[in-house]
This record gives sequence, structure tokens and C-alpha cells, in this order.
Amino acid sequence: MAIFDDELRNLKAKALKLSSMVEASIRRSVRSLVQRNSDLAREVIKNDHQINALEVEIDEECIRLIALRQPKAGDLRFITMVMKITTDLERIGDLAEDISERAIELNEEPPLKPYIDIPRMAEIAEGMLRDSLESLIKKDTKLAMDVIGRDDEVDNLNLQVFNELLLFMIEEPKNISRATRITYISKYLERIADHATNIAEMVIYMVEGKIIRHMKTT
Amino acid sequence: MAIFDDELRNLKAKALKLSSMVEASIRRSVRSLVQRNSDLAREVIKNDHQINALEVEIDEECIRLIALRQPKAGDLRFITMVMKITTDLERIGDLAEDISERAIELNEEPPLKPYIDIPRMAEIAEGMLRDSLESLIKKDTKLAMDVIGRDDEVDNLNLQVFNELLLFMIEEPKNISRATRITYISKYLERIADHATNIAEMVIYMVEGKIIRHMKTT
Repeated sequence: MAIFDDELRNLKAKALKLSSMVEASIRRSVRSLVQRNSDLAREVIKNDHQINALEVEIDEECIRLIALRQPKAGDLRFITMVMKITTDLERIGDLAEDISERAIELNEEPPLKPYIDIPRMAEIAEGMLRDSLESLIKKDTKLAMDVIGRDDEVDNLNLQVFNELLLFMIEEPKNISRATRITYISKYLERIADHATNIAEMVIYMVEGKIIRHMKTT
Repeated sequence: MAIFDDELRNLKAKALKLSSMVEASIRRSVRSLVQRNSDLAREVIKNDHQINALEVEIDEECIRLIALRQPKAGDLRFITMVMKITTDLERIGDLAEDISERAIELNEEPPLKPYIDIPRMAEIAEGMLRDSLESLIKKDTKLAMDVIGRDDEVDNLNLQVFNELLLFMIEEPKNISRATRITYISKYLERIADHATNIAEMVIYMVEGKIIRHMKTT
């Protein structure tokens, strides 16, 4: 089945493309915040429909492959998993859009404080996303476990951001509206890391048949 | 294929069961908040693994049906869609768990104000979830469109809750920690409605082949 092998390779390439589009959206949305450049955020919002379109295209390709090639157990499991993962990727795209909306709002007001933990969280979350996809493509459960392990770091940073901004709000009521928006962004990033963790958990389940559910701390 | 018909019916029943378990979790988590009864919240958290287990069971059944019965186009589309929807349902279960955690925290402090919009949001979101599943089972695109239409109502309530609590925070800094937690719960409910909307959009795509993406307002 040389054609089917090509088709599978092509499917993997498309899944990686979707993932890198989503990663670029996260990066751009956070850069828009840090550099106070709302044009970047508007670009993320404008490009989201491309992510949605690629999700549909990949799902259609999966259904076509299943119907036409009647893949055996391992390949079937992989293809159905790609269909589940596109949902996560599309949702991450939505979260990057949410970050962009909050960034535009925040960029219209004077800066509250320099952003330090937020870019750090974004960096970890992006790395988790990238590695969760790599673990899928290479069926690498060790890498998938590593992704799951990093989720706590993001959860802790989210808690730290929340506590720090709470103090800002208590100190000075006029900070509240901005501080709340920043806690939202922190929460969006934490949720992006959750999606990457979900993907990694599914990879482990696909390869080893073991169910791993991370303990949520927030 | 009388056996296959039975199997499909059985799959639908399981999807509905998962959905009603998730609905019960939402209801219980919000009741825990309103009635200040943390035992209910702890029950939701304790039962979440049952939701996760049923998600995996349904996915396994889907893969088995695809591999064994090699379903034709329409059925294949339905079965793969069930696999995508279980992800949404499981995430809604996680959000009910998030609500429960915030409820436990809030129940430990004196009440800030009576909850009015939150139960209203929960009621709408639950209805959307129930109807999105019914639209899937009956392939009823009219009902699916109706679900999508109700999402704005939840978005508006979320915005209203946010603005109202912002005033509470500005007025009195000691309200901030509690008020922020309530805005989180409002955001979780808004996200539950988003998941129901996603399910409804997928139903329309499955039946009509048309892509509908709702405009996100928050």
C-alpha cells in the first residue's frame, strides 16, 4: 500500500502544519501584549478562520482514508486520534484569539507592570504543544510523559500570576480592570497547556493502552 | 445489518448517558455554590473519573465499530463525530470540576451577594448541551441552529457578571478575592456553552456539509 503510506505521511504533515499555525498564533498574541502592538493581535484574529478551515480539511481527509483504505488497527487508531486532536488544536487557536482580544484592550490603557511570567508561561505552553505533536508522530511515550510533567509548572505560574495581581488590585482599585484582564490571559495559557497535556495523554493511551489523567491543580 | 443497527443504537444511548452525567455535574456544581453545600462539589470532583472512563469506553466502541463493520459514509461520519464530541463532553466535565473547586473555596468565606445570573447561565448552558446532543441523535439542524443562537445570551450574561463584580471589587478591596472567583465560574459556564455550540456546529456540518463558526464575543 505505497499510496496509503504517502497518504498517511501527508496526513501527518497536515497535522504538524495545523499545530505550527496554532503555535504561531500563541506566539503572536503574546508578543502583541508584550510589545504593545495591537496589529499583531488583529492578525491572529483575522487568521483564525484558516485554522478552522485546516481542521475541517484534516477531518475530511481522515474520514476519506478510513472509508477508502479501511486501515488496520494501528493506523485506524492513529487516524481517529488525529481527528480528536484537531479539536484540541482548533480550541487552542480560539484561546490565542481570546488572548489577542484581551491584549488589544490592555494595549489601549497605560501598562500596569512589565510582563514576565506571562511570556514564560507562553513559552512553556508552546513547547508542550510542539512536543505533544512530536510524541504523536513518533509514537514517543517518553516525550509524552515529559509534556504531562511540565503542566504543573504552568499551573504554578498561573497561581503565582493570580496571587500577584490580586495584591495589585487590593492596593489600588484603579488597577482592577487591567489586572483582571491579565489574570484571564494567564488562565488562557494554562488552558492551552491543558490541551497539550490532553494530547500527550491520548498519545500514551494510543501507544500503550494505559489511561493517564493528569491531576488538575486549578 | 440488524446487529449493526443495535450497535449504533447502543452507541447513541452511551453518548446520551455521557451527556446526562456531564449535565448532572454542572447542575450539582452550581447547586453546591448556591446552596453553600460543599459536599455536592466534592461529589462532582469524586465522580469525574467515571466521565473520563465512559469517554474512553465510547471511543473504543467507535474504533471497534469502524474496524469491524466498515460503515458506509453516513454512519462513518456519525461514528467519527461521536468520537470528537466525547472530547467536548469530557472537557465540560472538567469545567464542572473547576466550578466545584471554586465553589468549595467560596463556601468557606461569607457570601458576597446572592447568586442570580450564575444559576441562569448554568440553566441555559445545560439546555444547550441537552439540545446539542438531541440535535446529533435526531440529525436535527434546526435545533442545532437554535443552540448556536442561545450562545449570545450566555456571553452577554458573562459580560454582565464581569462588569457587576468589577464594581464590587472597586468599591471594596476585601471583595476582590471572592469576586474574582465568581467571575471565573461565570467564565467556565460561558465555556460550557461554547462546547455545546461547537457540538451543534459539528452536527450542522455533518448533516449539511456547511461550515458554521459562531462569532465569539468574549
